Amino acid sequence: MLVVMKPQATPEQIQAVCEHIQQLGFRAHPLPGAQRTAIGITGNKDRVEAASLEDLPGVAEVIAVSKPYKLVSRDVKEENTIITFPGTDATIGGKDLAMIGGPCSVESREQTFAAAEAIAAAGAQFFRGGAFKPRTSPYAFQGMGEEALKIMADVRDRFGLRIVTEAIDTDALELVDHYADVIQIGARNMQNYSLLRAAGRKRKPVLLKRGLAATLEEFLMAAEYIMSEGNYQVILCERGVRSFADHTRNTLDLSIVPAVQRLSHLPIVVDPSHGTGKRNMVVALGRAAVAVGADGLIVEVHHQPDKALSDGAQTIYPEQFVQLMNESSQIAAILGRNVPRGIHVAETASAER
Amino acid sequence: MLVVMKPQATPEQIQAVCEHIQQLGFRAHPLPGAQRTAIGITGNKDRVEAASLEDLPGVAEVIAVSKPYKLVSRDVKEENTIITFPGTDATIGGKDLAMIGGPCSVESREQTFAAAEAIAAAGAQFFRGGAFKPRTSPYAFQGMGEEALKIMADVRDRFGLRIVTEAIDTDALELVDHYADVIQIGARNMQNYSLLRAAGRKRKPVLLKRGLAATLEEFLMAAEYIMSEGNYQVILCERGVRSFADHTRNTLDLSIVPAVQRLSHLPIVVDPSHGTGKRNMVVALGRAAVAVGADGLIVEVHHQPDKALSDGAQTIYPEQFVQLMNESSQIAAILGRNVPRGIHVAETASAER
Amino acid sequence: MLVVMKPQATPEQIQAVCEHIQQLGFRAHPLPGAQRTAIGITGNKDRVEAASLEDLPGVAEVIAVSKPYKLVSRDVKEENTIITFPGTDATIGGKDLAMIGGPCSVESREQTFAAAEAIAAAGAQFFRGGAFKPRTSPYAFQGMGEEALKIMADVRDRFGLRIVTEAIDTDALELVDHYADVIQIGARNMQNYSLLRAAGRKRKPVLLKRGLAATLEEFLMAAEYIMSEGNYQVILCERGVRSFADHTRNTLDLSIVPAVQRLSHLPIVVDPSHGTGKRNMVVALGRAAVAVGADGLIVEVHHQPDKALSDGAQTIYPEQFVQLMNESSQIAAILGRNVPRGIHVAETASAER
Amino acid sequence: MLVVMKPQATPEQIQAVCEHIQQLGFRAHPLPGAQRTAIGITGNKDRVEAASLEDLPGVAEVIAVSKPYKLVSRDVKEENTIITFPGTDATIGGKDLAMIGGPCSVESREQTFAAAEAIAAAGAQFFRGGAFKPRTSPYAFQGMGEEALKIMADVRDRFGLRIVTEAIDTDALELVDHYADVIQIGARNMQNYSLLRAAGRKRKPVLLKRGLAATLEEFLMAAEYIMSEGNYQVILCERGVRSFADHTRNTLDLSIVPAVQRLSHLPIVVDPSHGTGKRNMVVALGRAAVAVGADGLIVEVHHQPDKALSDGAQTIYPEQFVQLMNESSQIAAILGRNVPRGIHVAETASAER
Repeated sequence: MLVVMKPQATPEQIQAVCEHIQQLGFRAHPLPGAQRTAIGITGNKDRVEAASLEDLPGVAEVIAVSKPYKLVSRDVKEENTIITFPGTDATIGGKDLAMIGGPCSVESREQTFAAAEAIAAAGAQFFRGGAFKPRTSPYAFQGMGEEALKIMADVRDRFGLRIVTEAIDTDALELVDHYADVIQIGARNMQNYSLLRAAGRKRKPVLLKRGLAATLEEFLMAAEYIMSEGNYQVILCERGVRSFADHTRNTLDLSIVPAVQRLSHLPIVVDPSHGTGKRNMVVALGRAAVAVGADGLIVEVHHQPDKALSDGAQTIYPEQFVQLMNESSQIAAILGRNVPRGIHVAETASAER
Repeated sequence: MLVVMKPQATPEQIQAVCEHIQQLGFRAHPLPGAQRTAIGITGNKDRVEAASLEDLPGVAEVIAVSKPYKLVSRDVKEENTIITFPGTDATIGGKDLAMIGGPCSVESREQTFAAAEAIAAAGAQFFRGGAFKPRTSPYAFQGMGEEALKIMADVRDRFGLRIVTEAIDTDALELVDHYADVIQIGARNMQNYSLLRAAGRKRKPVLLKRGLAATLEEFLMAAEYIMSEGNYQVILCERGVRSFADHTRNTLDLSIVPAVQRLSHLPIVVDPSHGTGKRNMVVALGRAAVAVGADGLIVEVHHQPDKALSDGAQTIYPEQFVQLMNESSQIAAILGRNVPRGIHVAETASAER
Repeated sequence: MLVVMKPQATPEQIQAVCEHIQQLGFRAHPLPGAQRTAIGITGNKDRVEAASLEDLPGVAEVIAVSKPYKLVSRDVKEENTIITFPGTDATIGGKDLAMIGGPCSVESREQTFAAAEAIAAAGAQFFRGGAFKPRTSPYAFQGMGEEALKIMADVRDRFGLRIVTEAIDTDALELVDHYADVIQIGARNMQNYSLLRAAGRKRKPVLLKRGLAATLEEFLMAAEYIMSEGNYQVILCERGVRSFADHTRNTLDLSIVPAVQRLSHLPIVVDPSHGTGKRNMVVALGRAAVAVGADGLIVEVHHQPDKALSDGAQTIYPEQFVQLMNESSQIAAILGRNVPRGIHVAETASAER
Repeated sequence: MLVVMKPQATPEQIQAVCEHIQQLGFRAHPLPGAQRTAIGITGNKDRVEAASLEDLPGVAEVIAVSKPYKLVSRDVKEENTIITFPGTDATIGGKDLAMIGGPCSVESREQTFAAAEAIAAAGAQFFRGGAFKPRTSPYAFQGMGEEALKIMADVRDRFGLRIVTEAIDTDALELVDHYADVIQIGARNMQNYSLLRAAGRKRKPVLLKRGLAATLEEFLMAAEYIMSEGNYQVILCERGVRSFADHTRNTLDLSIVPAVQRLSHLPIVVDPSHGTGKRNMVVALGRAAVAVGADGLIVEVHHQPDKALSDGAQTIYPEQFVQLMNESSQIAAILGRNVPRGIHVAETASAER
C-alpha cells in the first residue's frame, strides 16, 4: 500500500500521515521524490483500510502495490535513487558512474596503500578491500578483520576514497558500519535475512550482491528486506550467476541491469571480476557493463595480483584499471553519463571523522 | 594432515597426541573408528611437521589429506558416521533410515499436535516444524519463534518424536539448541559461515541443507566448517538445486547421494518436498531417494495442506505420508536397510529434560 | 481440437469423421481408447468450425485442446499408450517395465554378441547399441554404420532381443527403420524437426531422448512433431540435463517422470548411464528411476567397459546389470509392476524377417 | 597435427605437402596466413609420422595440436579469419563490424522490402530473414521456404544487402546455398553433425549459433565439424544460453566473446534479440556486445513488430535499429574498430548473379 501525498503537502502533513499509519499498527516509509512524497506502508498484518488514509490532509491518493517488492519498486518512487556521500561530490545512481577498485583482501598496510594509490591515481572515487572474507574453506585466509578496517579508514583519510567492504555477519556489520562508507553484503549472504535486516537498521548505504542462483525477484526482495527496516540506500550488484558454462567462474548476466532499472529506482553496479573469474576478461566485460547502462563497476585490482592471498586469477593490474577507467569514460559519454575523475572532499568532512 | 593411531593405542596416548598438536598451534580432532582412532589436524598455519608426531607413542602413521575437505572425508574416517539420540533407539546414518515428517511451519499448538499425531502414528521417529522461517518476502509470515519451539518440545514429550528445526541466525541457534534435537541449517544459509561455525560449537547434531547452487565440494566444505569447530554430528540434506527446468520448484539431484557416500562418512537425507515443490510428486521422489540409497527423508506433512501458512503446495496429506513410510520400508528392505516403526524412549531420557 | 466419438460409434462413422476433417483441410488422427475413440485435429490453418463436426453421426462432443501439445496429451487419450512388438510378448508402457541394455557402440560382432549374451542372460528384452554415433569431435569414432545394424539384426535373430538404436539423420533413419525395432532420436537431435518429422512418417516406435536443456513442454512438443506425422508410438527418455553440478556428467532429472505421466499418455524410460556419466552411480540411479515410476531403463553395458571405444566410464559390467535387473524387479513389484524375464518370440515372427 | 610452411615456401611446395598428406590417408587443410601457410592434418586414423613430413621441401616445422579442436584453433592460424563477400566491401572478422538486421521471418514481399529498406537506410550491410523456421510447435508457422529465399535474393539485388538465412536441414541447405550469402545453422542444430558436415561441403560462409546448453568446447567442436570438411569460413554467434534466470528468454553470455577470441581465429557475432527475448533490452545488450569486442550483431527488426508472425516480443523497431547502429559505431571507435555505413557492390558482382 502506498500513500501518495499532494505536491504541496507540508512536512507536518506527511508526519501526521506517518503517525496515523503507525497507530494502525503498520510501518510508514516516507520516500521523498522530485514532485511529491510517497509513503510506503509495510507490515505483516491485515490490509490497511485505504479509506481511513484518503481523507487525511495532504493525501492525494492511496494505491495498492501489487508487486511482492514494494519499497524497491518504481511504483513507489519513480525517480532514480541517488546515493550521496556527505562532504564529498561522490554519488551512486545519478549521472556519474561509481568506479570502485581495490584488492580482494586487505593483506597489509603496504599492499593496501599501494593499491589505493593506484586506484586514486586512476581517478576512481571508491576503494574496495576485504576485511572479512567468506571463504569456501574454513582453513583458508579469512581476512584481517578490524585491523583491515582501520587500514582502509586510513586510506580514506589519505586519498579521500570512500570505502566499500563486506560485512559477513552481524558482528562484522557493527565494525564495517563504524569504519566504512558502504556496507557490502556478499552473494552468499543475499538471503541471510537476519543480516539484511540488521543492515537495514544501519544508515550507511548497503551494496547488495546478487546470489549465485537468485532470480530477479529474489534479488529485489532481498533489497526489500533492507529497505523494510528503514535503510533506503541500497545499491544492487550483479556479479555473475551459476550456469553450466565452464569457460568462466560465473556467468555474468548483464541483462539484469536493464531489467532492474525498469522495475526499481535503485542503482545497480556490476562486478566483472567475480563475474568472469579471469583477469583477461575483466576489462572487456567491464566495458560491456558500462555500455549496458550500469551505474558503476566494482573491480578487483592489485599491484601484484599473482601474489594476492585470494582471487588473484581474477584481479587486474593497475594499468588495466586505468584502461578500464578510460574506456568506461568514453562509453559513458555516449550514454550521456560521466565517469568522474577524483573525489572532492570538504575540509570539514574529513575533520568530522 | 591426519594422525592414525594404532589399534591398541590407549586413551592416554590419544590424549597426549592431541595435546602435542595443540602445543604446535593446531587444532586436534580425535575421530574414533571401529578399529582405531584417527586424529584430524586443522589450522590456518603452516604445514605441521609430520616427523614430530610419528614418533609419539601409539601413533601408527601420519598421512597428508589432499582433499580440501578433511574431517568430512572418508580418508579420515572410513566407517559411516552414525548419529545417536541418547535415551532412544533412533539413529541417523546406520542401517535404519531416518524418517522426518511435519509441517513447514508451526502455526498453532492444535495444528502441530494434529500433524505430530499423524507422524507418530505413521511410525516416524522425527518431527520437523518451522519456528523461524526464512521467507523471500519480509512481509510474509516469519514463524512463531520460541513459542513454536516450546510447542515442539511438548510434541517430543507427548509422542517421543525427536525434533528437527531450523536456526536462521545465531540468536535462533541458541534457542533451537536449547529446545530441539537436531539443528537445521537451511539452504539459503549453507554458506553463512558465521552460522556454520556457531553450529559447530554446539553439541546437537546439525542437519545441513545443500544450497540452491552448491557444488558437491562446496556442500562438503560447508560441513567441514561445522566439523572444524568440533561438532562431528553433521547430517547432509539434498533438497533440490536451481536449473532451467520449470516443471518443478527445484531440480532434485539424487545423484549427490552416492557421490557424497563415496567421499564422506556423513549421512545424507533427502527432502522431496522442497526438491519438487509439488504435492503430487513428493511420494514418487521420496521412494526414489530411498532407492538411491539415502539415509532418510525429510518431508512436509500437514493435516490440511491447503490451509498451511507456508509451502502448502508441496505439503502432503498424512495418508500420503503413511504410503511413503510403507513403500520406503519395502524398498529399504531390498537394500538391506530398515525403516523403524516408532521410537523407543527410555524413562530416564524423558525425565532428564 | 478433439472429436470424441460415442462409445458405440462404428468404424465407418469414425472413418467418415476423419474424411470430413481432411476435406476441411486439416489432418485427422484417430486415437482408439479403451472406452471410445478420439480424433485429434491438427493443421496450420485457421480454427476448425466445431459446429460442422458435432452433428456428424457417432460424434459425442468436440472439445478444444488448450495445451500446445495435443496428440501427446492425456486430454486426447486418457489411457497409457502401450507399445507392442508383434510376434513377441514385449511391451513398453504397460505393467511390464522395458529393460534395455547394451554397449554404447557396436564395435565388432564378437563384442556385440558377448554383450548381447549377457543382456539376454540377465533376462532383458531389449538390446541397445550404437551404429551411428553423434560425437562431439569430428575426428572421434563415428560408429560402424550399416554393418553394425546387420550385427544387431543377427543379435535379434539369435537372442530374440528387440533392437533399439539411434538414427542421427534421415539417411541413417532409413537404415535404422529397416534393421531395428525401435528408432532412437538422440538428445542432440531432440529439436531437429526435420528428423522428427521423418521419424513420424515411419511406423516403428521412436524412443525420443530429452535434450540437454529441454523444458518439459519442449520435450512434449518434440514428441508432438513425431505424432503429428502419424506415428503415435513414441517413448520418451530422460537422460540427464545440463546444470552447474559437476559431480556427474549430467544431472538426472527424475521428477520429469511423474510430470510426463501426469500430462501425457506416452511411456517414459530413464537412462542412468548418460544421466550420471559414472559407472559407480548407474545402478543406484537406475533403482531410483524404477522407484519413481519410470516405464523402463536404458543402460550401457559392456563386458569390458574399460576397453569400450566410447562412454566406457559410464558403462557397467554385466554383473552390475544383473544386480540392476534383480533390484528393479523387486522395486517394480512394490509399485504393482513387473520386470519380465526373457522375451518370447513366436516362430512366425522370427521367420517373417 | 600441423605442418607450418616456411615464409618463402612456394605454392608448388604447399601443394606437394598436401598431396603427401593425402597419400598417407589423411586430409590436408591449407590455411594461408599473413606470414606463412599452415597445413592442418585431420583424419580418424592413427597418428601421422611427423618425420616423413619434416623433410619435405618448404616445411618449417611439424607440431602437434593438443586441443580437441584443431582447424578452429589459433594454434593453427594466428591471424583472425576475415570473411569477404566478393564484389563488395563487406567483411566479417576484420576491423569492420558486421551489422545484420531483418525480420525473424519473411512473411511477404512487402513486409520484407519494408524491413530491408529500413535496414539499408540505417547503413547495415547484411540482411537476415527466416525462410525455414524451426518452431517448437509443429502447428506454428514454419516459414515460406523457397519463396522467401527468392524475395531475399531480390532484396540483395535491390539494396545490395548480403543475405543471412537459416538452413534447418540438408534440403533447405541446398536452397539456402543457392540463394543466400551466409548459411545460418541455428542453435537447435548446433550438434546436428550431419547438417554441419553438409554445410562444411558448401563454399558459402556459415554462421553457427551456439546451442542453448553448449560449452565453449562443444561450440568450437561444432565449428570444427564444418571446417573438417573444407569450409573454413565459419562465423560463430552467441545467442544466449539456458539458465535458471527468468527475467529474460535466455541468458546472454557475453564472456564467450573474449573466450572464443583467445582460443580461435574465427569471428564471433552476438544476437541480442534471442539473447534477451525482450525488445526493451535489445539495444542495451547490443551495445554491450560491441563493447565486449564482438565482431558484429545480428538483430531482429520489423517495421511492425507487434504484427510479426514470430518473435515479435524481441523484435525492435527500425528507429531502435538506427540508434543501435549509431551507438555501436561510437563504441566501436573506442576499440579501434568501425561500423561501416552502407555496402558498395561492384557492377559486375550484381550482374554475375
